[in-house]
Amino acid sequence: MAFKWPLRVYIEDTDAGGIVYYANYFKFFERARSEWLRAAGFNQEVLRQQQILFVVREVSAKYRQPARLDDELEVSVSVEKIGKASFQLTQSVYRIEPGAQSERTELVQGRVSIACVSRDGKPRAMPEEIFQIMSQPDQELL
Amino acid sequence: MAFKWPLRVYIEDTDAGGIVYYANYFKFFERARSEWLRAAGFNQEVLRQQQILFVVREVSAKYRQPARLDDELEVSVSVEKIGKASFQLTQSVYRIEPGAQSERTELVQGRVSIACVSRDGKPRAMPEEIFQIMSQPDQELL
Amino acid sequence: MAFKWPLRVYIEDTDAGGIVYYANYFKFFERARSEWLRAAGFNQEVLRQQQILFVVREVSAKYRQPARLDDELEVSVSVEKIGKASFQLTQSVYRIEPGAQSERTELVQGRVSIACVSRDGKPRAMPEEIFQIMSQPDQELL
Amino acid sequence: MAFKWPLRVYIEDTDAGGIVYYANYFKFFERARSEWLRAAGFNQEVLRQQQILFVVREVSAKYRQPARLDDELEVSVSVEKIGKASFQLTQSVYRIEPGAQSERTELVQGRVSIACVSRDGKPRAMPEEIFQIMSQPDQELL
Repeated sequence: MAFKWPLRVYIEDTDAGGIVYYANYFKFFERARSEWLRAAGFNQEVLRQQQILFVVREVSAKYRQPARLDDELEVSVSVEKIGKASFQLTQSVYRIEPGAQSERTELVQGRVSIACVSRDGKPRAMPEEIFQIMSQPDQELL
Repeated sequence: MAFKWPLRVYIEDTDAGGIVYYANYFKFFERARSEWLRAAGFNQEVLRQQQILFVVREVSAKYRQPARLDDELEVSVSVEKIGKASFQLTQSVYRIEPGAQSERTELVQGRVSIACVSRDGKPRAMPEEIFQIMSQPDQELL
Repeated sequence: MAFKWPLRVYIEDTDAGGIVYYANYFKFFERARSEWLRAAGFNQEVLRQQQILFVVREVSAKYRQPARLDDELEVSVSVEKIGKASFQLTQSVYRIEPGAQSERTELVQGRVSIACVSRDGKPRAMPEEIFQIMSQPDQELL
Repeated sequence: MAFKWPLRVYIEDTDAGGIVYYANYFKFFERARSEWLRAAGFNQEVLRQQQILFVVREVSAKYRQPARLDDELEVSVSVEKIGKASFQLTQSVYRIEPGAQSERTELVQGRVSIACVSRDGKPRAMPEEIFQIMSQPDQELL
């Protein structure tokens, strides 16, 4: 039921250990979040002009298995909790198994807490339409 | 006639100037090169196991206009010159104009010289099939 | 009492929001961990040749205030818990206040769990000398 | 006679080939440029407030030898050419040979063309004091 975003591992993502560098999964998480908002019809640039900024307050990640060069990955976005001025997502990075496009192995499991703030950094309620969409029982924007 | 690879600008790609950081275009160039090789049927991991490594010897780039957050880009790959153990590509980053999907604006123009080496770093001839494909008059792999 | 490592914010670290990109603090954390091990006399390359690898199993971070271009930062490393084959660190990123070199403001607070594994990824006891140094009551390597 | 800036290779800088990723040398070049300007007494943030922006117009690099994890490097900055609204630098990355701190091996040789622009992107003369310092025969700011 979660939103899913596919991506590929390139050399830029890897490190001398031959695996994706641990900080880079947070880039993958954010690419998926950006596409999730875009898919729901929200343009972050337009929101920014309306003084609506989403800032990351807290993150965590568990690394179960490493991703490697050329791996096809899928990154999920699910709303875990939502309030008027903040929300919490769970996000995972999965490897799409080669030769079995319907099989997924979970590599990294994360949680991201995001607050809605105005340009001066003060908490503010998010727009009602975003709140509504994020509150849907199936936690899915599409 | 060149190979083209689409990509999107995310926050990770930008800098405090509000534009894509100048070094990151070289990441975009390499993503396109990787997909170009993949599209031609060459798996870099398999090549590596055969002691066939492609290493970058020289690069250059001219920055004409900056890419910005959320921009849709297209990265091209064209073979400019090819020898038995090396080749030279021209690569450009274009912005796909919003509201006019067929219009492109060239943002960055680059050139990349690549050598074929064995694991000990010594120059070696590239596999004949790669040489053949890269030598095609239309300089296109697909 | 913790190990401290100074660093400077460059344009590469920032994003279009004018602040350090949220994933990059994990790069800062790792630079400090690398220097902490080096200061204690452990060369990661030598350890790697002895089949002793340290891999990150879990991370978390709380973002309190953003770092900005040109900021002078200090990154801390403290051992929170240690076992035979793993340890947990707390790490913080502080801003050194300009004009008051002895003043620090905590920007990001993190926790990192690390396991010791052999090349095949199986848990293994860390070398006794590393265990001894990390177990010191003052949790400091220098 | 050139300005020199030392740095260390961390895991974040490397790729699955076990060497520093080719785009990352441009990060190293810019760290050295930032410190060169700072050493000469110019704060980029202050310049920005005065509508004086330095933007990269063109870069090139030759990769002679790779840098590896834990290498100690030194990055140089030399003014090659200077005009009223632009300048060209040559920059190199050297490895400081372990056990022979006075020995250097050149790894990457680059050239960077920079223009001075106002906030609207139009070329403008750089401040006279910057021009004067950059024009000194020894091409050195310190």
